[in-house]
Amino acid sequence: MGVGHSSLSSCSVDSLCIIAFTAQPKTSSFSNSNRQKPLFPTKKHSPFAVLKIGTLNCARVAGEMEIGKGIAAAGKPIVDLHGIDDGLIQKIVYDALVWSSLHGLLVGDRNDQRSGKLPGVGMVHAPIALLPTSFPESHWKQACELAPIFNELIDRVSLDGKFLQDSLARTKKVDAFTSRLLDIHSKILEMNKKEEIRLGLHRSDYMLDEKTKLLLQIEFNTISSSFAGLGCLVTDLHRTLLDDYGEDLGLDSKRIPGNTATGQFAEALAKAWTEYNNPRAVAMIVVQTEERNMYDQHWLCTVLKERYNVRTIRKTLAEIDSEGQLLPDGTFLVGGQAVAVVYFRAGYAPTDYPSESEWRARLLMEQSSAIKCPSISYHLAGTKKIQQELAKPNVLEKFLESKEDIAKLRKCFAGLWSLVDSDITKKAIEKPELFVMKPQREGGGSIS
Amino acid sequence: MGVGHSSLSSCSVDSLCIIAFTAQPKTSSFSNSNRQKPLFPTKKHSPFAVLKIGTLNCARVAGEMEIGKGIAAAGKPIVDLHGIDDGLIQKIVYDALVWSSLHGLLVGDRNDQRSGKLPGVGMVHAPIALLPTSFPESHWKQACELAPIFNELIDRVSLDGKFLQDSLARTKKVDAFTSRLLDIHSKILEMNKKEEIRLGLHRSDYMLDEKTKLLLQIEFNTISSSFAGLGCLVTDLHRTLLDDYGEDLGLDSKRIPGNTATGQFAEALAKAWTEYNNPRAVAMIVVQTEERNMYDQHWLCTVLKERYNVRTIRKTLAEIDSEGQLLPDGTFLVGGQAVAVVYFRAGYAPTDYPSESEWRARLLMEQSSAIKCPSISYHLAGTKKIQQELAKPNVLEKFLESKEDIAKLRKCFAGLWSLVDSDITKKAIEKPELFVMKPQREGGGSIS
Repeated sequence: MGVGHSSLSSCSVDSLCIIAFTAQPKTSSFSNSNRQKPLFPTKKHSPFAVLKIGTLNCARVAGEMEIGKGIAAAGKPIVDLHGIDDGLIQKIVYDALVWSSLHGLLVGDRNDQRSGKLPGVGMVHAPIALLPTSFPESHWKQACELAPIFNELIDRVSLDGKFLQDSLARTKKVDAFTSRLLDIHSKILEMNKKEEIRLGLHRSDYMLDEKTKLLLQIEFNTISSSFAGLGCLVTDLHRTLLDDYGEDLGLDSKRIPGNTATGQFAEALAKAWTEYNNPRAVAMIVVQTEERNMYDQHWLCTVLKERYNVRTIRKTLAEIDSEGQLLPDGTFLVGGQAVAVVYFRAGYAPTDYPSESEWRARLLMEQSSAIKCPSISYHLAGTKKIQQELAKPNVLEKFLESKEDIAKLRKCFAGLWSLVDSDITKKAIEKPELFVMKPQREGGGSIS
Repeated sequence: MGVGHSSLSSCSVDSLCIIAFTAQPKTSSFSNSNRQKPLFPTKKHSPFAVLKIGTLNCARVAGEMEIGKGIAAAGKPIVDLHGIDDGLIQKIVYDALVWSSLHGLLVGDRNDQRSGKLPGVGMVHAPIALLPTSFPESHWKQACELAPIFNELIDRVSLDGKFLQDSLARTKKVDAFTSRLLDIHSKILEMNKKEEIRLGLHRSDYMLDEKTKLLLQIEFNTISSSFAGLGCLVTDLHRTLLDDYGEDLGLDSKRIPGNTATGQFAEALAKAWTEYNNPRAVAMIVVQTEERNMYDQHWLCTVLKERYNVRTIRKTLAEIDSEGQLLPDGTFLVGGQAVAVVYFRAGYAPTDYPSESEWRARLLMEQSSAIKCPSISYHLAGTKKIQQELAKPNVLEKFLESKEDIAKLRKCFAGLWSLVDSDITKKAIEKPELFVMKPQREGGGSIS
């Protein structure tokens, strides 16, 4: 467990206010091993996806989304809804619901048992913020600048097997899940297997600190970073609503920044697929047995097919165990089909591994030549414990050369402590409003 | 009641196989009274919307759609699904469901009580044919040619108040609903009120007769002709599926004809709105209290807003009764807002008028200067009884001059008999497989 320090008086832990930036995949996150062939520009400003758990009739779904790696956007709303005519708000809400329905801004409704297994049934509009939230342009640019540096850092950390094993040695003893991940990591190290092509689709979550006005990082997601698909649609929805009601609200749709996260994620997956260089191979999405955020994933697959003609298949870890086959040359077949890219939208939580079958599947994929997004190393590099290690003095310097980059990263580090630190634990018990307790693993949510 | 003769051995009454053509609005259906200013080209080939109640997991919904003025497409499928690998069919079905979800090809799920009242909740994919159905090009062109002639005919018939009253005099005695419509019609005749701008959004339903290879008309819908919105999407879906699987199926997506029904309906509504010439007025959709086919309507309103900046409001007949106000100059206000165009997606069935309130609303709108789509005259002109009258010798000649046009219409007339004809009733009892029994009113479905 890690305890994240929080002094955001405007955001309670319950409302889980986090700005979600879709990090831009870049050289370090998707590169060949000798780093001679950058596939993405470095340090380019990246667009971002903002999704807020709003006040629409979706409180229940919002809770569900958090479990499913949900995102919530921070800050004060641009408009104080209490000051607006109720009839106008109802009109905007109605239009937002219609727009979401017609444009695929959907999730499965957990009231419908089939909705997590089949597309096209039991659908409900995604939980959304009715209107965009203000965010300082300077901090937005800062977050965009940070994205490629974090990607570079994660890539370098992922290549240092000893650092990962050592840093997580203590966690290994108390956390059976991380322990199993580390076992796979050890086996890969023993094989002396190098991931020559590496792909990361990351999302860095920030809070704006009210007191210091600093952009503080909450966590960096290296596995199953969701909402690239739906987040873009939220941007489109907000633009449409402001085109229609902006005058009444005193808001200008042109001030909403662009959001091309879906396209960028698809582009990155397509580049990885191209690098793998087997035109008959597919991209495989590793999915949970029930997935109510499936339309976010389907958008990505749709763009991947339409723009790059890359076909995807969807398999659970159990299906991969039963249908998967590793050929001597490293080719990974599922149901007889070669897999170029494995994109994890499952496998980040202990519940994704109910039996040995799922662990076998994870190991098999890791041993193959398929490009894993993420590899076991990227997955481990994204744990809170590693985030905590990287925040210690002189650790960043081991992985990055540029002092400027290091300074930029440090500036966004919020305090991060382990529960074994008795002083800080005592302080947290005394003043719980200053802290956020986060689980070690992925999957969203906080511990209250 | 009318009995429609049917000799289609390939289509049983139960499966209700009807090809639905979206008739093109044209001069006669949308014209000023002196007919000097045609707003739509005459006799231009019109695209059509085909929607088939398919074999997807939607048998229940299909039933619902029939009640809600559903459409089903006829003919043999291009591909014999029994000959195709089951795995391939499952893939196509999955893709079709994903596509429908992401692109708004939706209806409300009647298992969800809220789904008929609120958008964005309890949604399910629309019932669709998985693949397009073959249809002879010559018959398609014939149907396109017929559309403007039928529009012209309906317009002329609508202007002959005496013909409508006389033809429906017998129906009036036995059908309370038609009787109420005729009462409104009489009041309007007494007022000597002329509809100077008339708008019709029609759909003509045909069957292909297997024995004679003739295109036979089943009915002509002048009120609440649905599926312009979803029908276009089905065309897009089929094109996408054939782009992906056409090679496996031996089908070419380029052979699917274009479908611009949504755009044409929106264009017609926008032209009517422009003719009304009050930039602050809205278009009003008259809706049922529960409407699970709402997304079909929302697509139309979305295009109307995006392309023509015409705002729409949605009101039930009861709401119109309580919020409506007729000004001395004929202006119709609802909730204080001037209404330029009234577009009926309700009001065609007796159940739409549970009390006197709804009838008051209908009369009030009819008395106003708002452009009704349809007017009471257009509504009555679309009844089966009028269709039957028009099929009698020398009746078409009263309304149309062109012998060529008259011949074209006659060619597509299927036999149509009233139940008062004892000979035909006897024949129908002896050979029920040769007949379809249709209700006098709108609302779809057959009587078995």
